[in-house]
Amino acid sequence: MFKKRISIKQVEEGRHFSPKFNSKGLIPVITTDFKTKEVLMHGFMSKTALKKTIETGEAYYWSRSRKTLWHKGATSGFVQKIKDIRIDDDQDSIWISVDIGRGASCHVGYKSCFYRSLPIKKKNIKLKFKEKKKKFNPNIVYKGQPNPTKL
Amino acid sequence: MFKKRISIKQVEEGRHFSPKFNSKGLIPVITTDFKTKEVLMHGFMSKTALKKTIETGEAYYWSRSRKTLWHKGATSGFVQKIKDIRIDDDQDSIWISVDIGRGASCHVGYKSCFYRSLPIKKKNIKLKFKEKKKKFNPNIVYKGQPNPTKL
Repeated sequence: MFKKRISIKQVEEGRHFSPKFNSKGLIPVITTDFKTKEVLMHGFMSKTALKKTIETGEAYYWSRSRKTLWHKGATSGFVQKIKDIRIDDDQDSIWISVDIGRGASCHVGYKSCFYRSLPIKKKNIKLKFKEKKKKFNPNIVYKGQPNPTKL
Repeated sequence: MFKKRISIKQVEEGRHFSPKFNSKGLIPVITTDFKTKEVLMHGFMSKTALKKTIETGEAYYWSRSRKTLWHKGATSGFVQKIKDIRIDDDQDSIWISVDIGRGASCHVGYKSCFYRSLPIKKKNIKLKFKEKKKKFNPNIVYKGQPNPTKL
């Protein structure tokens, strides 16, 4: 499925799909809501995850905390149906637009993982919540599972 | 400016700004157009780049190809004015919404770096150009500078 990277011209201006994976074998992925266009999450895909995503039309990632292939929504039910996949100029990052229905994307319970903003041009930074209410209760949905957040 | 990461609760549910940088001292950044909401680019910030972005209200990145702090638009003139900065649940990625006026973000000449899409559920993948025309001529704007794309 992946073509060899032969020249800069081929990678930047061609139609060959030649994704570049980093030293850990991963490629960063931006996930947006195809309706509202908001950014839902930032993740990583392994080669297998990227292949499965393209083949099935549902988002697969590499879970760095669990060190495993991760079919998004397998536990929560909030599967991400692919509406569009894009690749960037040097083909080392992916952008997917997804349909999550009335679901959510964030393991904390919010719709987007980016539920907090920060002020610019200020010394004393306090994060501000942009989503007021969680979409689900993670203590119920992920009962018994370890929190993926690492300090 | 950055607070220590003490607990998962503080990182996920608190108002402290405690970004996590990877083993290379970088944090991934998603950049979107605040008007059209399209994804313009995927980049990385160092601690200094993130600080400068917050302090000045203009996007600074870490250029991995040039290994230097990078004030976006310094060469092309297409400065990115910050309209919103978000941080994700575990605070290891950043989303900035920016104003680039009538400018562009991609060194190849397109508005967005994600100017090509790929088909799903197909074996033979050919990229499709979603932007038909370049916004500028990179051979003029970046004359004499090496192409940042690495094979």
